[in-house]
Amino acid sequence: MASILKTIYSPQDLQNLDYKELQCLAREIRETLINTVSVTGGHLAPNLGVVELTIAIHRVFNSAVDRIIWDVGHQSYVHKLLTGRQAQFSTLRQYGGLSGFPKRDESIHDAFDTGHSSTSISAALGMVLARDLKGEKYSVVAVIGDGSMTGGMAFEALNHAGHLKKNLIVILNDNEMSIAPNVGALSSYLSSLRTDPKYSRSKDEIAELLQKIPHGPKLLKVVDRLKDSLKYLVVPGMLFEELGFTYLGPVDGHDIKAVTTMLKQAKNLGGPVLVHVLTKKGKGYEPAEKNPDLFHGVGPFDVVTGAIKKIPGAPPSYTQIFGQTMINLAKQDDKIIGITAAMPSGTGLNKFAQEFPNRYFDVGIAEQHAVTMAAGLAAGGYRPVVAIYSTFLQRAYDQVLHDVCLQNLPVTFALDRAGLVGDDGPTHHGVFDLAYLRNIPNMVIMAPKDENELQHMLKTAVYHNAPTAVRYPRGAGEGVAIDSQLQTIPIGQAEVLWDGEDVVLLAIGNMVPEALKAAENLRAQGISAAVINARYVKPLDEELILHYAARTGHLVTVEEHVLMGGFGSAVLELLERAGLSEVKVKRIGIPDCFVEHGKQKILRANYGLTAEGIVETVLAGEQRLHKKRKRIKAVWGRE
Amino acid sequence: MASILKTIYSPQDLQNLDYKELQCLAREIRETLINTVSVTGGHLAPNLGVVELTIAIHRVFNSAVDRIIWDVGHQSYVHKLLTGRQAQFSTLRQYGGLSGFPKRDESIHDAFDTGHSSTSISAALGMVLARDLKGEKYSVVAVIGDGSMTGGMAFEALNHAGHLKKNLIVILNDNEMSIAPNVGALSSYLSSLRTDPKYSRSKDEIAELLQKIPHGPKLLKVVDRLKDSLKYLVVPGMLFEELGFTYLGPVDGHDIKAVTTMLKQAKNLGGPVLVHVLTKKGKGYEPAEKNPDLFHGVGPFDVVTGAIKKIPGAPPSYTQIFGQTMINLAKQDDKIIGITAAMPSGTGLNKFAQEFPNRYFDVGIAEQHAVTMAAGLAAGGYRPVVAIYSTFLQRAYDQVLHDVCLQNLPVTFALDRAGLVGDDGPTHHGVFDLAYLRNIPNMVIMAPKDENELQHMLKTAVYHNAPTAVRYPRGAGEGVAIDSQLQTIPIGQAEVLWDGEDVVLLAIGNMVPEALKAAENLRAQGISAAVINARYVKPLDEELILHYAARTGHLVTVEEHVLMGGFGSAVLELLERAGLSEVKVKRIGIPDCFVEHGKQKILRANYGLTAEGIVETVLAGEQRLHKKRKRIKAVWGRE
Repeated sequence: MASILKTIYSPQDLQNLDYKELQCLAREIRETLINTVSVTGGHLAPNLGVVELTIAIHRVFNSAVDRIIWDVGHQSYVHKLLTGRQAQFSTLRQYGGLSGFPKRDESIHDAFDTGHSSTSISAALGMVLARDLKGEKYSVVAVIGDGSMTGGMAFEALNHAGHLKKNLIVILNDNEMSIAPNVGALSSYLSSLRTDPKYSRSKDEIAELLQKIPHGPKLLKVVDRLKDSLKYLVVPGMLFEELGFTYLGPVDGHDIKAVTTMLKQAKNLGGPVLVHVLTKKGKGYEPAEKNPDLFHGVGPFDVVTGAIKKIPGAPPSYTQIFGQTMINLAKQDDKIIGITAAMPSGTGLNKFAQEFPNRYFDVGIAEQHAVTMAAGLAAGGYRPVVAIYSTFLQRAYDQVLHDVCLQNLPVTFALDRAGLVGDDGPTHHGVFDLAYLRNIPNMVIMAPKDENELQHMLKTAVYHNAPTAVRYPRGAGEGVAIDSQLQTIPIGQAEVLWDGEDVVLLAIGNMVPEALKAAENLRAQGISAAVINARYVKPLDEELILHYAARTGHLVTVEEHVLMGGFGSAVLELLERAGLSEVKVKRIGIPDCFVEHGKQKILRANYGLTAEGIVETVLAGEQRLHKKRKRIKAVWGRE
Repeated sequence: MASILKTIYSPQDLQNLDYKELQCLAREIRETLINTVSVTGGHLAPNLGVVELTIAIHRVFNSAVDRIIWDVGHQSYVHKLLTGRQAQFSTLRQYGGLSGFPKRDESIHDAFDTGHSSTSISAALGMVLARDLKGEKYSVVAVIGDGSMTGGMAFEALNHAGHLKKNLIVILNDNEMSIAPNVGALSSYLSSLRTDPKYSRSKDEIAELLQKIPHGPKLLKVVDRLKDSLKYLVVPGMLFEELGFTYLGPVDGHDIKAVTTMLKQAKNLGGPVLVHVLTKKGKGYEPAEKNPDLFHGVGPFDVVTGAIKKIPGAPPSYTQIFGQTMINLAKQDDKIIGITAAMPSGTGLNKFAQEFPNRYFDVGIAEQHAVTMAAGLAAGGYRPVVAIYSTFLQRAYDQVLHDVCLQNLPVTFALDRAGLVGDDGPTHHGVFDLAYLRNIPNMVIMAPKDENELQHMLKTAVYHNAPTAVRYPRGAGEGVAIDSQLQTIPIGQAEVLWDGEDVVLLAIGNMVPEALKAAENLRAQGISAAVINARYVKPLDEELILHYAARTGHLVTVEEHVLMGGFGSAVLELLERAGLSEVKVKRIGIPDCFVEHGKQKILRANYGLTAEGIVETVLAGEQRLHKKRKRIKAVWGRE
């Protein structure tokens, strides 16, 4: 059979297809998704769930003119396939290839870059305001999942949009049935009644009818209010109606015709409209349907069996060690609490959740609430650990500062996916945490050199009587032995791994093993490099660092983090405070730009975050510094 | 008449009073509030509004055991008066005196520190979890205004609390009638029915009754749903009920008896309960009732006339100049948009709002939404200016990074109240903005030396095709002449104000005038100090700074901001990049601690952020650096 998908160069090409052909197209898209993601890895289940919805969206809206904003954006693969990016689809999430998220730079069909949750309605409302100010006519559509709807920001936007009453369409992609149950035939009937342009009149007719029905005197009094409340009796969208939205649905999101019809109605209705679409995560691929969590974001897998391809003999991930350490700590101490914002398996808290269900809290996608709730728990005498990706804690910066640190409460932040996360790209790299946490008084910040040190740091963190953060990278550990006894590490104590005289390599976290390799290489070249595992970004081990700085006169800092305000800057500040200005310092880290997507290995090499990069920097350093000073002397006449 | 207030040493003393005496007490409290705040300044109107509510809370709950969390916290003055802090009340908001917000350090009756909005329910829920895990019995009460309820974080917490079903009381202090109208006698009747412990049974009885009433076949089918929906017909708290809360109210918040009765009912009900209390902001003081906005946060005023005491001849504030500049820019360009998060007069956008109502958006207390909506407007071709206090932009750090900067969208952040804000204290000082914004790629950050430069910077910002932030301090400008023509300042261009050979003072924002005074003083002492108005924190004027650093060999940076990751750190990073390590650098700024409340003048002097402080630092610097180097040499045997 000839491929229909191959004939789709732009969404316009969908218009010529009948529903049967669209169903074939949906099947082909699913095949393409499964085949591609089984090789590249990526967000499979969310995309399998929105195949028909995306087709319907592109039938009803013209994405070259209308604005479609994909909340979170990991469900935009189908959209990419339908908007001229089929040929590049095999490069998905690969370095230099297509992004796994919408990108304005990538296509005019991508109206807004997304990656983090719950932003779409705000962005859409901004575009609506721009459109109306210019007096233009097009639709603005936000596609948001039921999970993202729990983020407070989505509520802020709904609340504002409902108040402004401007034309805006929000498609609620409900794949969990978690927001509202399907209330059956009556609902469908009244739903279609309400989406009819004659809705208002019909409602009045019903009210009239109701008034004729005999009823007790109390019910008589409430008839006026009943008229407005009728909708609450029969539709689950009351919450949205109360916020000023017209609610349509629910509709079966895998019925292209039904969704198309409802989206057309939404397009013709004025004001803010919410379309409630029911979809199944992983739809059409049995392993993903059965295990949508596993296939939410997945690595390469076997298409036939659905088995995830694992690298044989790979060491346990930092995430796994974190999860196990939480259990070990909680067994000893009933004050330990685990908190996640909708990421139980991503953060490794899932096993903790099974063992300690009473001390485990998943708050939904609600990072702000997670942090301040933890502050409340700490004020109540507990030791909460907020397990969260580095990039997502950005969403609760003020709560960390204002609710935790200002009161110096013992909340621990376990920052997974710190540093370069790889394929997910710029929205997800956790490369700002040291900078945004370091400026907050009372905060203690650490990063382990390997997965074994992680467990000791976690213990240290939960028993330090103040806010603490432990950051660790995405992926496998170093494969070191895991101590069976947990130790605490004195606050602010660094560790000398190698002594040396010529230069000191001061590394933090996963850059420590690279620094060790670099030192070995340098030694072979006759340069004696000391290696310090800094362990703490705050407080620094001032005495030790000053000792080695003064002794070697040449200090190189290494961090998988932006250079602006990061670990290296903390070291510069220390030298300034100590008046050690004559030490030559070179900082290795990420420059002042957003980092693209691609394998961690490629990205690290790009920024010199490798043993080779460190060696080059050390070798070039002396020479470059020397030249620069000469040049400045020549230009300014004074050194 | 003998004072009742003077007999209240602790909330226990309220128990012996009858309602008539409590009313007298309320009058005395109002007098005390008015008399004190007329001298100290502070949040008068919010406190006048909660006099009876606070009395009722302390009648029903025991704040030594029960936890009462005041959202925002500026309405906690009455609570302070009733919990043993009468004697110190005249020191309110004064340096070393009582804080204007709840403080755990200040009293056991203060359960949680607050200052920013919408945090109380999250904190309360954390305490509820701690209580239940310990198996203890006490009430946890969050008192939150209707304004704070628009913050998404409050929604996140309601959503989670409603799901957990644990005992928690949320008092909604509705002083605007903006959330729900009073629906009259029927509401009161059914409200009392529902708060009756026999509620569940009664509901069933009503359902039974309804089933006996004749009705059409369609209504028959919905009777089951009707049973649950009954509440929606008659109470305005549907939104909260939908989120899993039992809704009580509304109740007249100035009727001590009625509020007491309802709070007792709330205390006896299980699960999450929301009590809707209607209050009047400024109640009992005519000028404040008439002008609650003006008397929300107010400086010293005349009690009899209500006239605000102004310093005669004071220069216009930065806020005023910002507001006027926005109007000037918007007159020339219909792409300029003004956005505030519930702070039209605080940010100076109120006049802009009057002149350009179509281009002005108040989103409510919803900073995250404000920022991402601005990103949407920018993507739509507009030039939005988000006018916001520095401390409140902390709440949208991720939105700045992820939604604005990642797409390099031209959104301008006008950061008012940057630096030390004075009386409001640690929750409100805007001393972290340079650190948390500087690490974000694409961001341009500036700070004007005076109110005239502010207007030029604002023009520069809105016409720069990338994200920009302009930070400026709370209070009066320098009193300089205001240019009638707006200029743009080349991006990254600093300004040499004084030339000099011995030391260069590199100051940012409101520290520039201090640096000038310091240079004058130093010159009198024979030290030739150059003064540079840095203007830009990012990008720095690298060439100019390196020139002066190399030329003088001694550089002192001055900023009203924390030293961790701030402006001075940016300069250290520059010197590192340039390899100019032999320059002596000293940074003046705020050390790594939260700064108390008190007059700006006192606080600035404490941290050497004055001409005198700069002079001292310059003079001591050389000597101290010299000594330190000698000491290190002695200890470590190598310089």
